Amino acid sequence: MLVESEVVEVEGHIIDSLILAKVLDLILAAGCDYRSLDVDIGRTARDPSRARIEVSAPDPATLARLLAELHVHGANRAAHGDAQTAPVEVDGVLPAGFYSTTNLATWVSLDGRWCAVDREEMDCALVVRPTGALPNGGLPTVSNVPMHRAHVGDQVVVGSQGVRVKAPERRRVGPHFEFMDSDVSSEKPKGLFVAQVAERLRQVRSDQARILLVAGPALVHTGAGGDLARMVRDGWVDVLFAGNGFATHDMEANVLGTSLGVPVRGGAVPEGGHANHLRVINEVRRHGSIAAAVAAGYVGGGVMYECVRRGVPFVLGGSVRDDGPLPDVHTDVIEAADAMRAALAGVGAALICASTLHAIAAGNLLPASVETFCVDINPAVVTKLADRGSHQALGIVTDVGLFVGELAHALCGS
Amino acid sequence: MLVESEVVEVEGHIIDSLILAKVLDLILAAGCDYRSLDVDIGRTARDPSRARIEVSAPDPATLARLLAELHVHGANRAAHGDAQTAPVEVDGVLPAGFYSTTNLATWVSLDGRWCAVDREEMDCALVVRPTGALPNGGLPTVSNVPMHRAHVGDQVVVGSQGVRVKAPERRRVGPHFEFMDSDVSSEKPKGLFVAQVAERLRQVRSDQARILLVAGPALVHTGAGGDLARMVRDGWVDVLFAGNGFATHDMEANVLGTSLGVPVRGGAVPEGGHANHLRVINEVRRHGSIAAAVAAGYVGGGVMYECVRRGVPFVLGGSVRDDGPLPDVHTDVIEAADAMRAALAGVGAALICASTLHAIAAGNLLPASVETFCVDINPAVVTKLADRGSHQALGIVTDVGLFVGELAHALCGS
Amino acid sequence: MLVESEVVEVEGHIIDSLILAKVLDLILAAGCDYRSLDVDIGRTARDPSRARIEVSAPDPATLARLLAELHVHGANRAAHGDAQTAPVEVDGVLPAGFYSTTNLATWVSLDGRWCAVDREEMDCALVVRPTGALPNGGLPTVSNVPMHRAHVGDQVVVGSQGVRVKAPERRRVGPHFEFMDSDVSSEKPKGLFVAQVAERLRQVRSDQARILLVAGPALVHTGAGGDLARMVRDGWVDVLFAGNGFATHDMEANVLGTSLGVPVRGGAVPEGGHANHLRVINEVRRHGSIAAAVAAGYVGGGVMYECVRRGVPFVLGGSVRDDGPLPDVHTDVIEAADAMRAALAGVGAALICASTLHAIAAGNLLPASVETFCVDINPAVVTKLADRGSHQALGIVTDVGLFVGELAHALCGS
Amino acid sequence: MLVESEVVEVEGHIIDSLILAKVLDLILAAGCDYRSLDVDIGRTARDPSRARIEVSAPDPATLARLLAELHVHGANRAAHGDAQTAPVEVDGVLPAGFYSTTNLATWVSLDGRWCAVDREEMDCALVVRPTGALPNGGLPTVSNVPMHRAHVGDQVVVGSQGVRVKAPERRRVGPHFEFMDSDVSSEKPKGLFVAQVAERLRQVRSDQARILLVAGPALVHTGAGGDLARMVRDGWVDVLFAGNGFATHDMEANVLGTSLGVPVRGGAVPEGGHANHLRVINEVRRHGSIAAAVAAGYVGGGVMYECVRRGVPFVLGGSVRDDGPLPDVHTDVIEAADAMRAALAGVGAALICASTLHAIAAGNLLPASVETFCVDINPAVVTKLADRGSHQALGIVTDVGLFVGELAHALCGS
Repeated sequence: MLVESEVVEVEGHIIDSLILAKVLDLILAAGCDYRSLDVDIGRTARDPSRARIEVSAPDPATLARLLAELHVHGANRAAHGDAQTAPVEVDGVLPAGFYSTTNLATWVSLDGRWCAVDREEMDCALVVRPTGALPNGGLPTVSNVPMHRAHVGDQVVVGSQGVRVKAPERRRVGPHFEFMDSDVSSEKPKGLFVAQVAERLRQVRSDQARILLVAGPALVHTGAGGDLARMVRDGWVDVLFAGNGFATHDMEANVLGTSLGVPVRGGAVPEGGHANHLRVINEVRRHGSIAAAVAAGYVGGGVMYECVRRGVPFVLGGSVRDDGPLPDVHTDVIEAADAMRAALAGVGAALICASTLHAIAAGNLLPASVETFCVDINPAVVTKLADRGSHQALGIVTDVGLFVGELAHALCGS
Repeated sequence: MLVESEVVEVEGHIIDSLILAKVLDLILAAGCDYRSLDVDIGRTARDPSRARIEVSAPDPATLARLLAELHVHGANRAAHGDAQTAPVEVDGVLPAGFYSTTNLATWVSLDGRWCAVDREEMDCALVVRPTGALPNGGLPTVSNVPMHRAHVGDQVVVGSQGVRVKAPERRRVGPHFEFMDSDVSSEKPKGLFVAQVAERLRQVRSDQARILLVAGPALVHTGAGGDLARMVRDGWVDVLFAGNGFATHDMEANVLGTSLGVPVRGGAVPEGGHANHLRVINEVRRHGSIAAAVAAGYVGGGVMYECVRRGVPFVLGGSVRDDGPLPDVHTDVIEAADAMRAALAGVGAALICASTLHAIAAGNLLPASVETFCVDINPAVVTKLADRGSHQALGIVTDVGLFVGELAHALCGS
Repeated sequence: MLVESEVVEVEGHIIDSLILAKVLDLILAAGCDYRSLDVDIGRTARDPSRARIEVSAPDPATLARLLAELHVHGANRAAHGDAQTAPVEVDGVLPAGFYSTTNLATWVSLDGRWCAVDREEMDCALVVRPTGALPNGGLPTVSNVPMHRAHVGDQVVVGSQGVRVKAPERRRVGPHFEFMDSDVSSEKPKGLFVAQVAERLRQVRSDQARILLVAGPALVHTGAGGDLARMVRDGWVDVLFAGNGFATHDMEANVLGTSLGVPVRGGAVPEGGHANHLRVINEVRRHGSIAAAVAAGYVGGGVMYECVRRGVPFVLGGSVRDDGPLPDVHTDVIEAADAMRAALAGVGAALICASTLHAIAAGNLLPASVETFCVDINPAVVTKLADRGSHQALGIVTDVGLFVGELAHALCGS
Repeated sequence: MLVESEVVEVEGHIIDSLILAKVLDLILAAGCDYRSLDVDIGRTARDPSRARIEVSAPDPATLARLLAELHVHGANRAAHGDAQTAPVEVDGVLPAGFYSTTNLATWVSLDGRWCAVDREEMDCALVVRPTGALPNGGLPTVSNVPMHRAHVGDQVVVGSQGVRVKAPERRRVGPHFEFMDSDVSSEKPKGLFVAQVAERLRQVRSDQARILLVAGPALVHTGAGGDLARMVRDGWVDVLFAGNGFATHDMEANVLGTSLGVPVRGGAVPEGGHANHLRVINEVRRHGSIAAAVAAGYVGGGVMYECVRRGVPFVLGGSVRDDGPLPDVHTDVIEAADAMRAALAGVGAALICASTLHAIAAGNLLPASVETFCVDINPAVVTKLADRGSHQALGIVTDVGLFVGELAHALCGS
């Protein structure tokens, strides 16, 4: 039940500065809801737009918190009595509920009049000084004051009532400049991401849609091969796209215990073995196919093994850096892409891990409606996918080895 | 003169999926203009929104190109005759003007009826196959076909007339997920960025506003110290924020020819000198201040020298990693921040280079109205600034050493 | 028991090209051992060096594998009969045990004579073609052949006997160029790293030495705060260095459930709350200290709470970007560094997580003998620590949130 | 003339801890030279090694500076009188020539006896306090003191005479851990790198060897296409390896003025044109080959144009992400790699720019003797090349657009 409501207003270039989008987003993210009362989109690029939105919240505290948050993006409360203040009681300590400033131009309503704040700085407080014989004709002054400069007796604005900000403008500097956004920050709680991806994959599976895994060799190097194999075995992968490297290192890890010659499970396996991957490729070539190598018992575990066992289709696309390659690799890249196209029917979600080449290849082929998660430790890979047109993918910057380990745990149990 | 016009429509969650913002942005970026004819914002988060926009372009070719581009983001032409087709004349080669697909669900108007395209894949062509005794009751089929599969005689859709797409939805997976955007991609033409930043700084100076430089030590390590000094000398820096490291290495480079012991100009200076920065700090401490060291001739060039000579105010904020530090460093960080606040009056633009700590410190203090450019080779720094609330800064991911060299060239001549 | 042995030789600039170091390293990493029989270091930089090393291995297979591996780095077997060959039996499949090439100039002993291989390419096979009426005077030819070009009947060198390579040279291009090494690659098995760090920390604790944790705020943003608190509670942290940000977000996460306003545990906490960190700082300032806030019950969990409860000393160093700051922060950076110095006595290991500023500050203060692990998702941070002189630290490029979660699990149980 | 000389000693695990290699490297980098007098390599991995090296320098100052530098890596002067001291004359200012500490265990010779320094911290000074009635039997105490704590009258060690350090040990934690080194730091002076690469390419050309360019599409996106075309035209590229993307965007930039739809030269070209690359591919397919498209005047500039005009051979290797592709692309990756092999004869230097896939492909094929420069803004690419076995490549982390611009300027003039 959303029982508390209030009307907010936002004005300016609220469409192209993304202000309105951000405001609506925050409302929903806070567990609140909105009704648009009045939206007037400027007729031309020069005209400002205006929107009045009724915000509903489950309780007064949530509403107050949300209203304060909306200020950061330039949305003001339509109703405004005067601002309320409370005195500082200890030097350097603000009264509880103090209004926390944004970096936008700000006005405070006092005695029914709007007083401009003297300067703009975020994360400060507003101190109101009483009217005196001042050049501004008797208006109180409102100063932007950092916490450590608050002195006993200062009157500080509390709550967001009676405070208005000017919405920020998006400057149009040139066609290449973009405003910074933290889309692919690594500083996010990855445990939550694991839970959310697991939840989405469960939903996709329960919707009878198929799950595509696009896998790069770093998954094996980082020790996630076993976890991924469990996910295949338990039915969380319906189709696999990868290259010669991933399939080779996955089998190398299972046959020889190394990945690109480096041991992946610790213990007694010596480092070295720069030719290990070649020996594995050579033996699989001798068997004629990965399926034949599995059938003959040469490969006894891992992602490729589980795919063969469960009949999960895989497309291994060739690349100019391939050693060997494995007999299953499509050495003609056009045939490889066509094979990938043919395998996409019914795919409802794609999990792309630690691959640049195959990530972009898959991104090129996927409909926008396929839910896509791109996991890589390198933000540039995630960014590049977006650059190539896959705007609907969700990026997660983290260590794929640890991430897939926790995802397998969430989906398959320990 | 924008003489050509056409009406486009967009429908769906066009606000919160950022579709409308992107559409308006593309129109202006293409040198075209718009009038909003009819915008109906959904009352609630469940209701779709609709917008009809009249687009004006300087010539038919630009208009056609723009209309095709708008399709990528889900905006369709309101007027629609049937789609036009042209035959393939060489296997694997499409007719000129072929319609290039998006990854959105697509329909083609044929004989006045909308025919759904069989699958979604971007960067392909649409091939129309004639009506036959088909299960779909006689509608032509429209197939999404990659270029290499086009065969002689195939009828391919040309132009965007008679093609509609469904606007993509923004999925709400969870509060932390963000859609990927390539805001801080390193794969942008940096020469243009140099010209644009130079242009903006010229504008700010001609507006009588002041320019703030926030500088990290990598500027000196990468050899940009001399270029930056020229910029100070020629009046392109009105106030400098930095730390002990930048000021020390700038003077070390000028007194001893090294930066953190590494020679910065090539030639005869031997590598080594791990203690060089300490020796410079020690001597400046002996003089009592940077200004005194300049006056005494100990420091004869560089950024700090030019600041002293021209009276450019600088604030050196201390940090726990500082050696020495220099006598001018504010070792109390609260005093340092207060000194920075005091120096910001009149600042209209900020150029932040190769600094994380001081970038965030400055970002905390700057009003949103100050034009801010953040230059770093590490996308994470740029992202972090946005995470901390400085959404209005523009990020440039490049090598600061080379970038500042070219910027100095653009502003000061060679 | 190392029962198998063989003598290897290496010649060239084996010291400054790091060849000898790498060879000895590989021997030990393979579980083998060595005795140096004869080492002749060139008198000058122009003179080549030579070393003869007796390698001992536990079994013939390990020895053979190691000898093959040493070839990559230019170490040849001293004893050499002729090379052995085996025929290709299937097109594109090499005989088992084929010699895998390096990218070094290579010779093969045939009929007691050294025959040069026609070209250098790594990861290929050597095919011997019989003597004919050839211009080279009757020597067999040896060709470097990629696997896919091997034809039935080709005689392929197997094993490393009778194969010699020329050690690579390290070119001296200039003082700044460095050879690439993959020291801080993110493509390593992180599960093993967790186990190894846990093992080292156990050892340090059993040696009665103290463990230093240097913590950045991303630890909290990535959701690792609870895991870290467990580590403190269970006695795995003896001293903590951090800044205002870490301590604030740790308490914010426990008091308000967010970190920089972003919920860190999922569930019902709404996003937003850009001022949450300020409110927490303000209340702790009201209490007068973190310890007082803990005593008063305002802070009831988290890293700072556990430090107060267990009497773990902490040093919070101030920085110019600090909001507030917390009353426990040393706002004077010289005092902060002195407090850090005073707290280092008895420290035997340092775990540095997700911090640049405090990582470098701690790195400046730590003796080389303190075992130091630097964990960050950004390779540049790890590189920077080395640039500043902390050459003895071990770098781990991974997601700190997931890494610390698994480390806490390894040390404290689930 | 190297007229000054002195003998230094180093002891410990100087081979596998890379100490000896670093010491010899520093000597040469400082413009000095060495003769090894006595090198005793430990017989086994447990035994320490010892080396005595005579260092020659051009002048006493260089020698003194070098000797101080060698201390950081554990090399001590063999001759040692007592340490010399000088008094502090101003609080917080050290006497000129003060000995700057390392983070190694340190002893100071006083009255012919070695006194241990009380603690280890780098970048500090050593203060000698006179003998008193002390528990250590009358030895003076030597304290490690940061600059700011030096007090008037303190006796501070000056010069490195009479100071010994203990060489650091390399700990063997596990097979995957590596010590951090700043091989691929972005914080280097790139202007010097440009000059050095230009110098090497001139040398290779004057040696009649061929220069290979491996090019990724970001070269075009970052605006370096024109500079690269100049380099081809002026004869600085003898063979080109690239993919469909590079060749397409190079021609797109010249035919349509965009790269992946983004304008690369500024000015009037509108942004957009997501299908531009497809249209260019389509037209080149219509012509039948890049050479035919150049001959027909469709492509009138750029890298591919200059290659065709000058007869520079190029190999375009296909990949699964390719649109089209261009008719010249080898769609079979094995054929592509074979074509690359065939084109490598006589190559003496390779310049790899902004490519991961083709960088690794070329790295796989190149002999170790080919001088290889790998330029990328992403340190991970450079690291990955080393991981794949190309240890001899030199990595430069910078913005390829700006770097190639300056390289073209250095080689071809402005």
